[in-house]
Amino acid sequence: MIERSIEYVAVHTRVRLARNFADYPFPNRLKTESASEIVGAVTGALLGKVEDLTAYDMDALPPEEAEFLFERNMISRALIQNKRVSAALIACDESVSIMLNEEDHVREQVFMLGYDLRRAYERLVSIDEDISQIMPYAFDDRLGYLTSCPTNLGTGMRASVMLFLPGLARLGKLKSLFPKFKRLGLTIRGAFGEGSGAEGYMYQLSNEITLGVSEEEILTCVENAVELLTAEEWKAREELLKSGGIFLIDKIMRAYGVLSNCMTLNMSDFLQLITEVKIGVCLGVLSGDLTRLDALLVDMRPANLDHLNGTPLIESERDVFRAEHVHAELRAIGLLTEERWEELYEGGKNASCGISE
Amino acid sequence: MIERSIEYVAVHTRVRLARNFADYPFPNRLKTESASEIVGAVTGALLGKVEDLTAYDMDALPPEEAEFLFERNMISRALIQNKRVSAALIACDESVSIMLNEEDHVREQVFMLGYDLRRAYERLVSIDEDISQIMPYAFDDRLGYLTSCPTNLGTGMRASVMLFLPGLARLGKLKSLFPKFKRLGLTIRGAFGEGSGAEGYMYQLSNEITLGVSEEEILTCVENAVELLTAEEWKAREELLKSGGIFLIDKIMRAYGVLSNCMTLNMSDFLQLITEVKIGVCLGVLSGDLTRLDALLVDMRPANLDHLNGTPLIESERDVFRAEHVHAELRAIGLLTEERWEELYEGGKNASCGISE
Repeated sequence: MIERSIEYVAVHTRVRLARNFADYPFPNRLKTESASEIVGAVTGALLGKVEDLTAYDMDALPPEEAEFLFERNMISRALIQNKRVSAALIACDESVSIMLNEEDHVREQVFMLGYDLRRAYERLVSIDEDISQIMPYAFDDRLGYLTSCPTNLGTGMRASVMLFLPGLARLGKLKSLFPKFKRLGLTIRGAFGEGSGAEGYMYQLSNEITLGVSEEEILTCVENAVELLTAEEWKAREELLKSGGIFLIDKIMRAYGVLSNCMTLNMSDFLQLITEVKIGVCLGVLSGDLTRLDALLVDMRPANLDHLNGTPLIESERDVFRAEHVHAELRAIGLLTEERWEELYEGGKNASCGISE
Repeated sequence: MIERSIEYVAVHTRVRLARNFADYPFPNRLKTESASEIVGAVTGALLGKVEDLTAYDMDALPPEEAEFLFERNMISRALIQNKRVSAALIACDESVSIMLNEEDHVREQVFMLGYDLRRAYERLVSIDEDISQIMPYAFDDRLGYLTSCPTNLGTGMRASVMLFLPGLARLGKLKSLFPKFKRLGLTIRGAFGEGSGAEGYMYQLSNEITLGVSEEEILTCVENAVELLTAEEWKAREELLKSGGIFLIDKIMRAYGVLSNCMTLNMSDFLQLITEVKIGVCLGVLSGDLTRLDALLVDMRPANLDHLNGTPLIESERDVFRAEHVHAELRAIGLLTEERWEELYEGGKNASCGISE
């Protein structure tokens, strides 16, 4: 019944390149005029080439719109803080975001739903070629690409995979894996900010080392780690399912019941409940698309809800609005059929025979 | 929107008469042979007259069947304990139960869904007339009907109304009303056993005094108290709705969500959750029939589930079986439509505008 596929673990791919132009100082010393030249040049070079790109002048962007883009992982806090000189070019399908004058002149990123580092990297290389035509990059034959912060020197590349690791996290097995990845030049951290831990059991795995390795070596190293973690995660999930049995399934179903019926829903409740539902999808208890549930996680953030509503909401209104949208979306996704219900109860009754009173 | 009707408070009516035959000692001193004579005589007199009556010889009844009837409030623990001499005549629609050789020779009871003491009493009188034809009752001109326990002397009558009082109970206003009822010769107690308190917010109101008052006086006194309590309960519910607002509705909806989606459900969880759903029906948040939910409360008790299953279940199986039945029954009752959902969210958003962050 359980399909141990990688896409139930590695849910999201991101590859980023950091670049700087040789003829300009790094953004922290950049004059407004030079910043505008860079923004103008990159925008001009890409607008025709990359499909459906929208340019955002950060200084002119209302704060709630900036927050909206930040919640959608399209821009960073640093870009917002640097708004005097910064800009962003974002594809309307959110597959590409190029941040200009953030920490470096150019931070090119390609995002993909699901797991495909190679395809994401290929697309990024093609965008990078277009940008590199404008003017020479700051490049050193020995070091590679020069970056504002030495941690990005060399390839300037960060290959990241978002991992959903409820099994390893619940069994408390993640922490012991961290030093292993550190030795491989990789880092893994809670997705909701550094050190935020296991909120939603989402973890971002990425290369820490950019210097003295090739892009190919980075990709291979991350890929190997994803494969290892996927295998470990599935082992952990099966262990959980075996020990939790019907109570694990019951917890999933109750979370689904609350999510699809509540009248008001704050972000923290939502995160906790949708995580159970996601576990349900992974374990084949519920049907449906994990990426759609992850998209909902983004859509239901405060500034995103305000954006959807058209005008800003107060928190209590937002919680009702969130409940309403989650209700509608869960129905649209169609996680359960009446036939599936019957199967679950049948399975539950068989399983519960073995549980002593 | 809220209909302050009495049937959302007074949900169930029961009237009982205690009678003894003059020519036999009270049940605690009754020989098996005499007990059989009484059982035979009453059964013979009623079987043709009261429709669809089934006779149960308590001594021959398997314990699980006795437990089943007890859970359905058809028989008492005392009848089961007295099984050497006792029997019961029960209508298949559960509107009549006549316990023989319990504490008294005859305990005649008429049950009605909803609130109608007069109709219940009328039906009981007609049954009592049939029984009184058999042989003379133990009757004293000054005291009235003689009973095994002096608390039932006189009319031998107990008129009871089952009340659903979540409003008064939650506001902590019930306890202060108890002495008032005591002074009127009435008693009110938690429905799940004496002193069990507010489990499920079900309370049984009945007359305590049977001696020196007429049947008519008892009925009027209970009716007056029901009217008073109904008015107070509605006031309390409106107060709760006003102060709880959307969070009260949210609690109802989450309970509904868990009840209709859980995989396993123990009796205590079930009682707590169905009580929220019942509050939802009373407040017009959910549609549906309160009596059907109360029937479910009885049907989902352990021996009732075993009866439904055909063979005894272990507790863990029973909890899954209960979850499955509640799921199906809530769907059959149809407490919510998609249109109702939209209304609720609309109302919720309007209401939440007034809540400060």
